[in-house]
Amino acid sequence: MTIAFVGLGIMGSPMAANLVAAGHAVTGYDVSAERVDELVARGGKGASSVAEAVTGAAVVITMLPDSPQVEQVAPDVVEHASPGLLYLDMSTIRPETSRWVAGLAAARGVRALDAPVSGGERGAIDGTLSIMVGGAAEDVEAARPVLGALGTTIVHVGPAGAGQTVKAANQLVVGGIYGLVAEAIVLLEASGVDPVAGLDVLAGGLAGSRVLDLKRHTMIRRQFAPGFRIDLHHKDMGIAIAAAREAGVSLPLTGQVAQLVAAARAQGHGSLDHSALLKVIERLNS
Amino acid sequence: MTIAFVGLGIMGSPMAANLVAAGHAVTGYDVSAERVDELVARGGKGASSVAEAVTGAAVVITMLPDSPQVEQVAPDVVEHASPGLLYLDMSTIRPETSRWVAGLAAARGVRALDAPVSGGERGAIDGTLSIMVGGAAEDVEAARPVLGALGTTIVHVGPAGAGQTVKAANQLVVGGIYGLVAEAIVLLEASGVDPVAGLDVLAGGLAGSRVLDLKRHTMIRRQFAPGFRIDLHHKDMGIAIAAAREAGVSLPLTGQVAQLVAAARAQGHGSLDHSALLKVIERLNS
Amino acid sequence: MTIAFVGLGIMGSPMAANLVAAGHAVTGYDVSAERVDELVARGGKGASSVAEAVTGAAVVITMLPDSPQVEQVAPDVVEHASPGLLYLDMSTIRPETSRWVAGLAAARGVRALDAPVSGGERGAIDGTLSIMVGGAAEDVEAARPVLGALGTTIVHVGPAGAGQTVKAANQLVVGGIYGLVAEAIVLLEASGVDPVAGLDVLAGGLAGSRVLDLKRHTMIRRQFAPGFRIDLHHKDMGIAIAAAREAGVSLPLTGQVAQLVAAARAQGHGSLDHSALLKVIERLNS
Amino acid sequence: MTIAFVGLGIMGSPMAANLVAAGHAVTGYDVSAERVDELVARGGKGASSVAEAVTGAAVVITMLPDSPQVEQVAPDVVEHASPGLLYLDMSTIRPETSRWVAGLAAARGVRALDAPVSGGERGAIDGTLSIMVGGAAEDVEAARPVLGALGTTIVHVGPAGAGQTVKAANQLVVGGIYGLVAEAIVLLEASGVDPVAGLDVLAGGLAGSRVLDLKRHTMIRRQFAPGFRIDLHHKDMGIAIAAAREAGVSLPLTGQVAQLVAAARAQGHGSLDHSALLKVIERLNS
Repeated sequence: MTIAFVGLGIMGSPMAANLVAAGHAVTGYDVSAERVDELVARGGKGASSVAEAVTGAAVVITMLPDSPQVEQVAPDVVEHASPGLLYLDMSTIRPETSRWVAGLAAARGVRALDAPVSGGERGAIDGTLSIMVGGAAEDVEAARPVLGALGTTIVHVGPAGAGQTVKAANQLVVGGIYGLVAEAIVLLEASGVDPVAGLDVLAGGLAGSRVLDLKRHTMIRRQFAPGFRIDLHHKDMGIAIAAAREAGVSLPLTGQVAQLVAAARAQGHGSLDHSALLKVIERLNS
Repeated sequence: MTIAFVGLGIMGSPMAANLVAAGHAVTGYDVSAERVDELVARGGKGASSVAEAVTGAAVVITMLPDSPQVEQVAPDVVEHASPGLLYLDMSTIRPETSRWVAGLAAARGVRALDAPVSGGERGAIDGTLSIMVGGAAEDVEAARPVLGALGTTIVHVGPAGAGQTVKAANQLVVGGIYGLVAEAIVLLEASGVDPVAGLDVLAGGLAGSRVLDLKRHTMIRRQFAPGFRIDLHHKDMGIAIAAAREAGVSLPLTGQVAQLVAAARAQGHGSLDHSALLKVIERLNS
Repeated sequence: MTIAFVGLGIMGSPMAANLVAAGHAVTGYDVSAERVDELVARGGKGASSVAEAVTGAAVVITMLPDSPQVEQVAPDVVEHASPGLLYLDMSTIRPETSRWVAGLAAARGVRALDAPVSGGERGAIDGTLSIMVGGAAEDVEAARPVLGALGTTIVHVGPAGAGQTVKAANQLVVGGIYGLVAEAIVLLEASGVDPVAGLDVLAGGLAGSRVLDLKRHTMIRRQFAPGFRIDLHHKDMGIAIAAAREAGVSLPLTGQVAQLVAAARAQGHGSLDHSALLKVIERLNS
Repeated sequence: MTIAFVGLGIMGSPMAANLVAAGHAVTGYDVSAERVDELVARGGKGASSVAEAVTGAAVVITMLPDSPQVEQVAPDVVEHASPGLLYLDMSTIRPETSRWVAGLAAARGVRALDAPVSGGERGAIDGTLSIMVGGAAEDVEAARPVLGALGTTIVHVGPAGAGQTVKAANQLVVGGIYGLVAEAIVLLEASGVDPVAGLDVLAGGLAGSRVLDLKRHTMIRRQFAPGFRIDLHHKDMGIAIAAAREAGVSLPLTGQVAQLVAAARAQGHGSLDHSALLKVIERLNS
C-alpha cells in the first residue's frame, strides 16, 4: 500500500520504519529534513511537503505533537487527498480536534480515523503499540492491515474522537495511580515501614496494578529514567481536562492529578519518567 | 495450640472456624452469645468474658471493629495473659493504637503483633487472606503456624504498627483506583464511547489494575452488591488520614479520596460495595 | 472621542450606552442587528460590520464572549485601524490570547490593552466596574478618560495579558470562597447549628469576606437568582486553569474549584448565581 | 465572682489576667507552677491541682491544648464542682468531646458550655476575642458577665458542641482563603504581574476578604512572623475533618486544605504564621 507518513519524531520514526519493513511503500515528511533522510536510509521515500507526501497515497498517517500541529496539517492532507483516502491521525490530541478533523475529511470524501497509541517509544520500535481507534467501523476494518504493522492491540472504541477519549481516560488513570503509589511510599517510609515489603503486599492484592508491577522497585530506588516523560503526561492531563470540559463532566480526582503532574513539571522534572510524580509528593513533605 | 479468639463477627467467625478445622483448641468470646454458640457448634469452646477466654491460652487473637474496642479489650488480654503469650490483634485500626497495644503488652512480657488482613469475607472463609504483620521478627515466626491457617500471604512488614500502616496504604490505593476508574467511566459515557470497549483497552495497558480486572464489568452495569462495604472503606480512609497525621505527612490525593468515600456514605450507599464510589462521581454530574 | 464598540451583549450594551451618555461618538456593531438598533435608539450610531465600525475610530472597544471571538475580530480591527488607534479588549479571555492580540496590534502600530472587568451587569449599567488593565503605561493613561465612563476603579496591573491574569486570579479566589462558605454551611447545618448565627460569627472575624457580607443570607435561604452565572464562572475557571498552565504553575485548590464549578454546570445550574456552588456540596451529601 | 481558671498558656494567661482586672476572684492552675506564679503576681490566687482550684468556685474556665487534656481534666472539674457550677471550656477541641463533657456535667448538675475563641494572643491580651458559645440559652446568659471581660463578640450559636462546630467552620474557611490567596500570588508572580497591584484589585472587589486586608502585604513580602501558628491551624484542620466525619458530611475543599496545612508543617513551618501556606504553594512550583 502507498502510505504517506507525516511526523517522524521519537514515535513516528520507528512506526514509519515498521511500515517499510512490512512491505509498504512509505513516503515520509517532517519539518526536520534529517528525519526524512533517516526514513529514506531505511527504505522509505522522502517528501519536502505535506502536499507532496500525501499526493497519490492510499493511506495517510499523521503523528504530531499536539492539536495545533494537527489543525495546521489536516487541511493540507484533505486538500491533496486522493479519492477515498484513509487518513489515520495517530497523534494524541483533544477529542474535539479529532471530531473537527473528521468533519473536514468527510466534507471531501476522506475517511478519517483518530488512532492514538499507548506503549511508548519501546512499543513503537517493537510494533507492539496499543491503538485506540475512533471512527466508522468499516474504515477501522480497512485500516487494520496497516495498523497491524504498528501494534498488537487494535480496538475500535466508538465514533470520531472516541480514540482520543479513551486515551485521555487511560492517562488520567495512569497518572492517578502514580500519585496514589507515591503517597503510599511516602506514608510507609515516614512510618518506618520497609516500602519494598509494603508494596509487595499491595501488588499482590486488590491494590495491585501494572504500575506497581513494573515501577515499584524503580520508584522506591528513585530511578526515574524515562520511559514516558512528565512533559508528555502533562500534555495528556491537559487533554483529559479539556475532554472532560468538552463532555460537560466534573472529574475531581483528575483535576487534582493534573495539578500534581503540573507541579512535577514546574519543579523541573519534565524530562523524567512519569513515575517521578513521587518527587512531588516527597517535596510536599520536606 | 490453645487459642483464644475474641471478636466473632463476619470476619472473626470463619477465621476461628478455620483454626478449629486446623486442629487448634479454640475458645471464643464475643459480646453476642449467639456467635459464641456458633463457634461451639463448629467444635470450639465458648467463654463468657475476655478474661475467661484468655486465661491459659498460648495465643490470643482479637478481631474487633475499630480502635476503641481494641483499647477496651487489650488491657484485659494483657492482665490475664499467661507468661510468653502471643497476642495477635488482627483488627484494622490506627497504627498509633497498635503501637500503644505493643507497649502495654511489652510491659507485661506479652509478645504482641498487629496483623490486619485483606481479602474480605471470602478470604476469611477460604483461609486465603493476605496478612500484613508488624512486630518483632521472632514473634512473627512464632505466629506463622497459626496465621497459616487463616491466610496464604503472610508478610512481615516492620515493627509494631507497620501492619496497620501497610493496610492503610493498601486502602488508600484501592479507594483511589476506584475513584479514578469511576471518573474514566463517567468521561467515556458522557463522550458517547462504549465503556466496555474503553475499559478493555485500559485493562490491557499501563492503566491496568486488579480493580479493573475484577470490577469493571459490574461497575459498568452498576452492580454494587458487596464485597467490601463503603462503610468499612470509610472507616479505613479515616485510619489512612489518621496514619498520615501521625506520621507527619501530607497526602493530597488521599485527602480527596477520603472525602469522596465519605460522600458515598452520606448519600446512603454505606452498605454497597466500595466500587459504588462510581455513584458519587455520577451524582456530581447529574 | 469617536469610539467603535464591538459586542453589544448584556455587558457591552450598557457600557456603550454609558459612553454615549458621557458625550462620546459611539458606533456600535454586534452580530445581532437588534442590539445595534438599541444602541442607535440611545444616541449611538450603527455599523453593519467590524470593519465599518472601526474605520475612522480613535478608540475601539471589544466586549466579546471568549477567546475564539476575539481571535476572529482582532485581525479585522487591526486591519482597518486608523494610525495610533487605541484598542481596548475588555473581554475576559486567556492571557495568552491577549498577548497574541497585543503582538498583532504592535506590528501595525495599534496600541492594544487588555482590560477585563469585574462588577457584573449591575456595574456595567451603573458605570461602576472594576477594570484591570494590561499594557503599556502611556497607553493606559491615554485610555483613562474613556475607561472612566465605564468604571470607578481602573488599575494598571502590568504588561499585555496582565489584566487577564488578574481577572483569572480574582475568579479563582471568588470561586474558592464560595466553595469554602458552602462547606461551612453544610457542616453547620448537618451538626444542628443555626447557620445564620454561625456565619455571622465568621463574617465578623478572620474568615470574613465580601462573599460572606453579600451572599450569606441568600445562600442560607437557597436563593440563587443571578448575579453572575455559573456558566460564566465555569468559563472563567477554564481561563484560570489555562492561565496557570501558560505560566507553568500548579494550583491545587484552583484545580479542585474548577471541577466543583463544572459539577454545578453538569447538574444543570448554569443559569443560577455562582453562589449556587452550595448546591454541589449539598448534593455530594444527599 | 469566684472563678477557677485551668490552663494558663499563651491564651489562658492573659485571659485570666483580664478576669482579675475586671474584679473577679480568680484562682489559677496549670501544670507549670511558673505560670501559676505569674497569675499570682497579677493579683490572682494559685492552686496546686485542678481539684483545689475548682473547689468552691462559682465558675470554672478551662483553656487547654486539645481534646485529650479536656478529657483528662473534665472529670476532675465535675467531681469537685459546687452545686450549680458554670463550667466554660474555652479550648478548641472536637465537637464530639464537647458533647461528651456536656453529658458528663449534666449528670452532676453542672452547667457546661463550649466557648472556643478566635482572635489569637492579641485578642486574648486586649480582651477583644470573638467567642462562639454552645449550650443552653440560660447558661449562656449567666456566663455573659464573665465572658464580657474576655471578648467583644459573644454569640450563642446552638446546643452543646455548636461552639466548636462554628470554630471548625471558621478555621476551614480561613485556611482555605489563605490557600486561595497563595495560589493567586503564585499565578500573578509567575505571569510577570505585580502582585501588589493585582491583590489591591482583588481586595477591592468580590474576592475581598479580611485575610487580603490584613495579610496580603506581608504575604507578598514573605513575612511570616506569627500571628497564629501553622501548628495550631494544623490541629484545627484535624478538628474540622473530625467534625465533618462526626456530622457525616463530605467536604472536598476542606479535605484538600487540611493536606496543604499538613504539608506546611511537614516542611518545617509549624512555628510560622498560618499565612505561610504560601510557602507550600511556592514549593510545589520550585
